[in-house]
Amino acid sequence: MNIYFAASIRGGRADREIYSSIILELKKYGKVLTEHIGDPNISSSGEEMADTEIYNRDMVWLKEADVVISEITTPSLGVGYEIGQAEAIGKKILCLYREVDGKKVSAMITGSPGVKVSRYETIQDVSKILEDYLK
Amino acid sequence: MNIYFAASIRGGRADREIYSSIILELKKYGKVLTEHIGDPNISSSGEEMADTEIYNRDMVWLKEADVVISEITTPSLGVGYEIGQAEAIGKKILCLYREVDGKKVSAMITGSPGVKVSRYETIQDVSKILEDYLK
Repeated sequence: MNIYFAASIRGGRADREIYSSIILELKKYGKVLTEHIGDPNISSSGEEMADTEIYNRDMVWLKEADVVISEITTPSLGVGYEIGQAEAIGKKILCLYREVDGKKVSAMITGSPGVKVSRYETIQDVSKILEDYLK
Repeated sequence: MNIYFAASIRGGRADREIYSSIILELKKYGKVLTEHIGDPNISSSGEEMADTEIYNRDMVWLKEADVVISEITTPSLGVGYEIGQAEAIGKKILCLYREVDGKKVSAMITGSPGVKVSRYETIQDVSKILEDYLK
């Protein structure tokens, strides 16, 4: 199974370690195409590649993916874009989020029939959510 | 001309007054379907409607739009989603942003061939950008 994992890069890297933990969980189920999302060397400045190259690479991966899993606690324009494109091409999409300071997830995500949203607190919760969703 | 204006709601309302000014500029060119984006009564808690109703209304408007104009300075998952969906259905898309603290716009937006990104500092800049883009 090809898994496209989406999470914030330029929107902010505060949850970077959580992304790494989620990627480790995802690797139990298949190939994570976007493993660099957890890379501690990638700051909010982004990757050392031209934006068009990043875009073209990620859109190829998105099309190759069997499922799109995203962590949406840190609001990210790029993650929203990927979810919108993924839904338009009929991909299966799961969004994971933690409630922080009572902030609410966008209605364009929670209100969409093509997106499943699951709330978690711990990585153990994520493990259970992924088991239910991917098995 | 039907204009879909997209900007942050639940992602944060710090730029709300700027959104209002942009909407005023846009109204010179056509009907702004999403005029509520500038409403001072809408906080980051969002609108007083069910998420599925917001989603369904906004997706109808997105399809009816001749052009999508968004303000992307505050990272927003919903705005990213709308841009992704709009691009998938072939809409003309312009993103406006101010550079704040050296933060960079997502490569999924700047790297996309279907999205034009314009940087501005003042509302006078926006006025000129819109004139060039919409006339």
